[in-house]
Amino acid sequence: MPLTALDKDRLAQQVDARRAQFANDLKQIVEVPSVSAQAKHKPDMRRCAEVAAQLITQAGGKAEIVETRGNPIVVGSFENDPRAPWVAIYNHIDVQPAEEGRDGWTRPPFVCTEEDGRWYGRGSTDDKGPAITALHAAQLARAEQVAINVRLVWELEEEIGSPSFEGFLEVHGARFKPASVLVSDTIWLAEGKPAVPYGLRGLAGALLKLRTAQKDAHSGLTGGAARNPIAELADVVSKCVDARTGRILIEGFDRTWQPVAPEEAKDFVDSGFSVESFKSAHQLDSLRADTPEEVTQRIWGRPTFEVHGIAGGYQDEGIKTVVPPYGEGKVSMRLVPPQDPDECIRLLREHVRKLNPDVEVTHEKGLRAYAGARTGPYAEAASDALEFGFGARPAFVREGGSIGAVLSMAEAWNVPITLLGLSLPADGYHGPNESFAWGQARGGMLTFVRYLERVATLA
Amino acid sequence: MPLTALDKDRLAQQVDARRAQFANDLKQIVEVPSVSAQAKHKPDMRRCAEVAAQLITQAGGKAEIVETRGNPIVVGSFENDPRAPWVAIYNHIDVQPAEEGRDGWTRPPFVCTEEDGRWYGRGSTDDKGPAITALHAAQLARAEQVAINVRLVWELEEEIGSPSFEGFLEVHGARFKPASVLVSDTIWLAEGKPAVPYGLRGLAGALLKLRTAQKDAHSGLTGGAARNPIAELADVVSKCVDARTGRILIEGFDRTWQPVAPEEAKDFVDSGFSVESFKSAHQLDSLRADTPEEVTQRIWGRPTFEVHGIAGGYQDEGIKTVVPPYGEGKVSMRLVPPQDPDECIRLLREHVRKLNPDVEVTHEKGLRAYAGARTGPYAEAASDALEFGFGARPAFVREGGSIGAVLSMAEAWNVPITLLGLSLPADGYHGPNESFAWGQARGGMLTFVRYLERVATLA
Repeated sequence: MPLTALDKDRLAQQVDARRAQFANDLKQIVEVPSVSAQAKHKPDMRRCAEVAAQLITQAGGKAEIVETRGNPIVVGSFENDPRAPWVAIYNHIDVQPAEEGRDGWTRPPFVCTEEDGRWYGRGSTDDKGPAITALHAAQLARAEQVAINVRLVWELEEEIGSPSFEGFLEVHGARFKPASVLVSDTIWLAEGKPAVPYGLRGLAGALLKLRTAQKDAHSGLTGGAARNPIAELADVVSKCVDARTGRILIEGFDRTWQPVAPEEAKDFVDSGFSVESFKSAHQLDSLRADTPEEVTQRIWGRPTFEVHGIAGGYQDEGIKTVVPPYGEGKVSMRLVPPQDPDECIRLLREHVRKLNPDVEVTHEKGLRAYAGARTGPYAEAASDALEFGFGARPAFVREGGSIGAVLSMAEAWNVPITLLGLSLPADGYHGPNESFAWGQARGGMLTFVRYLERVATLA
Repeated sequence: MPLTALDKDRLAQQVDARRAQFANDLKQIVEVPSVSAQAKHKPDMRRCAEVAAQLITQAGGKAEIVETRGNPIVVGSFENDPRAPWVAIYNHIDVQPAEEGRDGWTRPPFVCTEEDGRWYGRGSTDDKGPAITALHAAQLARAEQVAINVRLVWELEEEIGSPSFEGFLEVHGARFKPASVLVSDTIWLAEGKPAVPYGLRGLAGALLKLRTAQKDAHSGLTGGAARNPIAELADVVSKCVDARTGRILIEGFDRTWQPVAPEEAKDFVDSGFSVESFKSAHQLDSLRADTPEEVTQRIWGRPTFEVHGIAGGYQDEGIKTVVPPYGEGKVSMRLVPPQDPDECIRLLREHVRKLNPDVEVTHEKGLRAYAGARTGPYAEAASDALEFGFGARPAFVREGGSIGAVLSMAEAWNVPITLLGLSLPADGYHGPNESFAWGQARGGMLTFVRYLERVATLA
């Protein structure tokens, strides 16, 4: 390990002394239900920004709530030395929808409780826990007199595809421009096995809407003559993806992406990815493929077409013999380089139009796939920092998820971006009973401080 | 019109004098949410039976709550003359699910309010309104000294396929055996155009269940490798029915049914069925076919495969990028003579097994299709009674819906069964904001009394 001015034991003691403060900060922000996808939570987005700004101020940073066309972005500045470089640490503090008693949630999602060294609550690992970890790391770096300035960038629209982040960078990008970026919003392969992704899948989401009537009709009285929008949408979906193999059937789609290079495929397998751990972490009973080669390429290196739900019709217990008036297929595609979401939506739209011209396709702003550096000084700094913080060097892989802000920052700032996530597969990222472990926060603080120390010399 | 001892004007005055009592009786029974499909309403089924028995007793009948393996059946006896024949009048007092703010309901479904001569509330037209109409007709027939005894048979499991009605008839059928049966649970072609159906479609419902995981998974982290149960069910559904044409694709299915005879097809069209009225009554924007020939045969004379909803996955606003762990296709087939529901479910099960062996198919008890008499003395009595009550003779058609109890009674009693429904297309049968009009109750009482007078001489 290269030379460091950090005394690891003393630093670890300082981190441990922060546990109660960390728990308190996390609780305050997790208990604001900042669900960006749901209109009813609009006031909570503002409240979450205010809570975040207060936490930053209390930690000795300068907080600014920057307005955008959508939800605001919270910027926290820890300026230590005007001659030192700036590092931007990106997190997001909006969360996925969650409701107690639904989708497997057995806890109230917006009450943050600690149990066996884990904090539970929606957003605890994605991405409020890592954000609060970064906040504490900024304080520690200041206390350790690391010659670096830290800019926390906390977004409130990540879960809806970051529609206003580009606009934020257009207006404020120049004054916040850092020498490099650290993004902490990704997941390890397993506990004790850090992963640093150099690529992200993109995302293109769409709603397939079909209205054939104005109210529920009786399937005895009208069935046979009445159109059935759920059946028609099922037909459309079944002709967009082969559900058994996952193969995408959209005309022209296969010409828009490239498979991973052989050396990347080899790294994926060498990363120690375990199909069994993957299945058990995500509680998947069976998969479309069973070898590490196939599974890693499927989740990191290939596009997908997913149907998240077909809304409309009868959803409760048993059967209600109605012909529903309306259906809505909620679909999305994960994209890999060099796919362009607009082009993919265009192909989907054209494909659906040919299948069923009555289906209306609306789409949200998409995200391009991202390809960063697998090697070089920032990758080395990340390796070194993870070894310092967790005693393990990371695997360089790709990430199956999408972080819209990464691509925007890459385009706006054109500086190195390192993805140093802290979440574990078992944390329930986007799933029920989401949690974040103190072990990850603790190691995360050590890792971030060491990373900041290293990159301070690179700019 | 054949001779009658009834003075129509005087009888109409008596009917009009009953309006307040009718409204009160209807309100009492509609406000019990007797939703047979939902376990949470189990206590309401018993309460509905008790309210019904009380209404019958108050009207001067003898009420009996007969226990079955499932919900009880309420039997109300109006014995007027021990030498006279018995007529059983069948209705059901269980209802379809309904919830304010869902599926188009803008009113509280279990509050019965009157507006412009209509009573609103779930079950008002299907089938509590016609039941209360029959109750008043029994009182009127007694007052008019019609030489007939009336047995009201009120079921509480019609909407779930009458699973206990056959058992009820096995145990109690002999002591309740009537000379003929009147069933009032069908719908006219239009206001002012009564219809007497001589045939009913059967029903075979099934749940297609597929579990591939134990919780929601993140579509970025797992998508491509994770199976998607909603997509797999969409594929299965799309291979059971051609959604655009309605053609059923289940192997062997087409060998199990026969198209209507040319003279029936002609009667269907001659009935005055209007495609435009049909569309507007059911608020259907477009249909799979546009001619009266095609539409009537599709809804009365051909089987269907319907998907009522695909449960599971994300159903709320926007998109939530999860891979759902579970999906449930809620499907049913309407059947025509001589289809047997067990055989149709067997074919479906086999077909689904070949398509996707992981999909579990569970089914509810099915209903055979029913074929009764289009001509003869009971058909004539019905024609005459409708002319008396509403000033219009009926069309003889088939009915697209299913009434399980009809087939059970035909088999157990082997006596003539007449279908004299009172509901109008605009009443919202199985739909939102269901209602029942005083005009139909009023004409219905007159019709029933006249029908009872006529069939008193037939036994």
